Amino acid sequence: MHVLITGAAGMLGRKLTKRLVDVGTLRGDSIDRIDLIDIIECPTEAAICCSHVGNLCEHGVAAKLLRPVPDVIFHLAGVVSGEAEANFDKGMAVNIDGTRALFDALRCAEGTPRVVFTSSIAVFGAPLPDLIPDDFHLTPLTSYGTQKMVAEALLADYSRRGFFDGIGIRLPTISVRPGSPNAAASGFFSSIVREPLDGAHAELPVSRDVRHSHASPRTAVEYMVHAAELDSAAVGARRNITMPGVSVTVGEQVDALARVAGPDAASLIVEAPDPVIADIVGGWPERFDTQRALDLGFVPDRSYDDIIRAYIEDDLASG
Amino acid sequence: MHVLITGAAGMLGRKLTKRLVDVGTLRGDSIDRIDLIDIIECPTEAAICCSHVGNLCEHGVAAKLLRPVPDVIFHLAGVVSGEAEANFDKGMAVNIDGTRALFDALRCAEGTPRVVFTSSIAVFGAPLPDLIPDDFHLTPLTSYGTQKMVAEALLADYSRRGFFDGIGIRLPTISVRPGSPNAAASGFFSSIVREPLDGAHAELPVSRDVRHSHASPRTAVEYMVHAAELDSAAVGARRNITMPGVSVTVGEQVDALARVAGPDAASLIVEAPDPVIADIVGGWPERFDTQRALDLGFVPDRSYDDIIRAYIEDDLASG
Repeated sequence: MHVLITGAAGMLGRKLTKRLVDVGTLRGDSIDRIDLIDIIECPTEAAICCSHVGNLCEHGVAAKLLRPVPDVIFHLAGVVSGEAEANFDKGMAVNIDGTRALFDALRCAEGTPRVVFTSSIAVFGAPLPDLIPDDFHLTPLTSYGTQKMVAEALLADYSRRGFFDGIGIRLPTISVRPGSPNAAASGFFSSIVREPLDGAHAELPVSRDVRHSHASPRTAVEYMVHAAELDSAAVGARRNITMPGVSVTVGEQVDALARVAGPDAASLIVEAPDPVIADIVGGWPERFDTQRALDLGFVPDRSYDDIIRAYIEDDLASG
Repeated sequence: MHVLITGAAGMLGRKLTKRLVDVGTLRGDSIDRIDLIDIIECPTEAAICCSHVGNLCEHGVAAKLLRPVPDVIFHLAGVVSGEAEANFDKGMAVNIDGTRALFDALRCAEGTPRVVFTSSIAVFGAPLPDLIPDDFHLTPLTSYGTQKMVAEALLADYSRRGFFDGIGIRLPTISVRPGSPNAAASGFFSSIVREPLDGAHAELPVSRDVRHSHASPRTAVEYMVHAAELDSAAVGARRNITMPGVSVTVGEQVDALARVAGPDAASLIVEAPDPVIADIVGGWPERFDTQRALDLGFVPDRSYDDIIRAYIEDDLASG
């Protein structure tokens, strides 16, 4: 089993690599090689890992990674939401042209490997129903969401034509994200848990009744692995699937923190209303009907308490 | 008022040019220049028309057409469904790269002209509900439909960012198409009317209970003109709109032909079942809820009888 991970130096890429190395098998076969590519050097967890530094947009980079063609490709490489909005050319180049370069290289290569593409619920844009059905149309309101939508469309058509065997998974907001607070509008969803667990204050820019869907990094990685192992006949022509999340209000997140880490931790959250962030977040999806993903065997976190515990076990405990 | 039409040598491009020349105004202003571009020479209907031969995919072609930037651009250029399926590279190049070249040239040019893009109901793919709602998701089952979906996504985002002011209109099947029968699976929808009106037999490859949505070429041109004149504030962020059609069964088409042209014409239709065509057509959308387009003032044909009369007036009578 030969695996390729693009965007492998990112948070999810590193966790996916570790998961594959730890378990050692994928689709029932022993993994004997994991190629990692990113624009910076990737930490190589084990002897089976090989790090490549390169940009998929550049001519020949994708083709070189396909000699020989891996059995499974996890395509995580991408410019994130804020950067794609701030730097339009870079977002188009990385999220569309880089993806298409990989897809076109696969088209020209031998075999039809499974390609797992990490899309995003940013493909949906307001106005949205309270519960977004699986067949709701895509009307992104960011360049990032638009670029993910384009990549999804290409993935479905390239799969239909047999150029490769793709599955796109639309990830909900990932929390609790390890690391430092960042400037993303969604950053507080993680920091109101992460900072108090570290004994520090965290600012809450929105009302406690704001509702949002979450998946832990651990579960996001399991979604990717499950997408790699899924029978494509069960998926059919609609190759892009909205992943389940735990839908909670911010108040319910805080209650979960108090249950898992005690009331003192929860008391470190300070109300700091920010109308700009409240307005951005107000246009985001709250809840999805993800029956299709559940029917296909994707297993979500059971509760926000579990999401906090996953962070403590996977990130806080290991430093 | 300066207008640019891409794909201007095609059937709809020629009819649109004629309509603009005949009426002489658009958005309340007198039209003083119409640039026409296609890969072949366009018939120039009037002194205000100027034909350009070129391919939008080629470097600099789009930019040259934007000196100065037209007030309204009708982007009709594209490879059709059958060709995009048979020649993947050509479809991607023309339908995606050519469109993006135009959009990127507009981004670099002064002003924010209205861009009317002719998309297609091919963005929808089976399984479909009997009545397809306006917010139904896009799951094309052809490369053509995929390429139109990608262009729609880019149009919406480029408009949101203010690079231009785009409206995408998803046209239903156009009938009655003038000219010779072609090999398209949808060709019979037109030929069962056109050939009998010409005194010739026409083969009917599907059952008479097959239901489909139609717009006359005349109405399709009026949709384009209305899209050019529409207030974008009324449209909002969702820039791509499914156009209304007349939803009839093939049997109802034949009944309409008998009413308009007499039973002798209708008797020239010969049953010639073709399971391959029946299977393709069986996956096509039958009927749309196009309330949004109707609310925005798009006016459909009133009946299939009217569609036949439009063909007689616009094409048959004029030779």
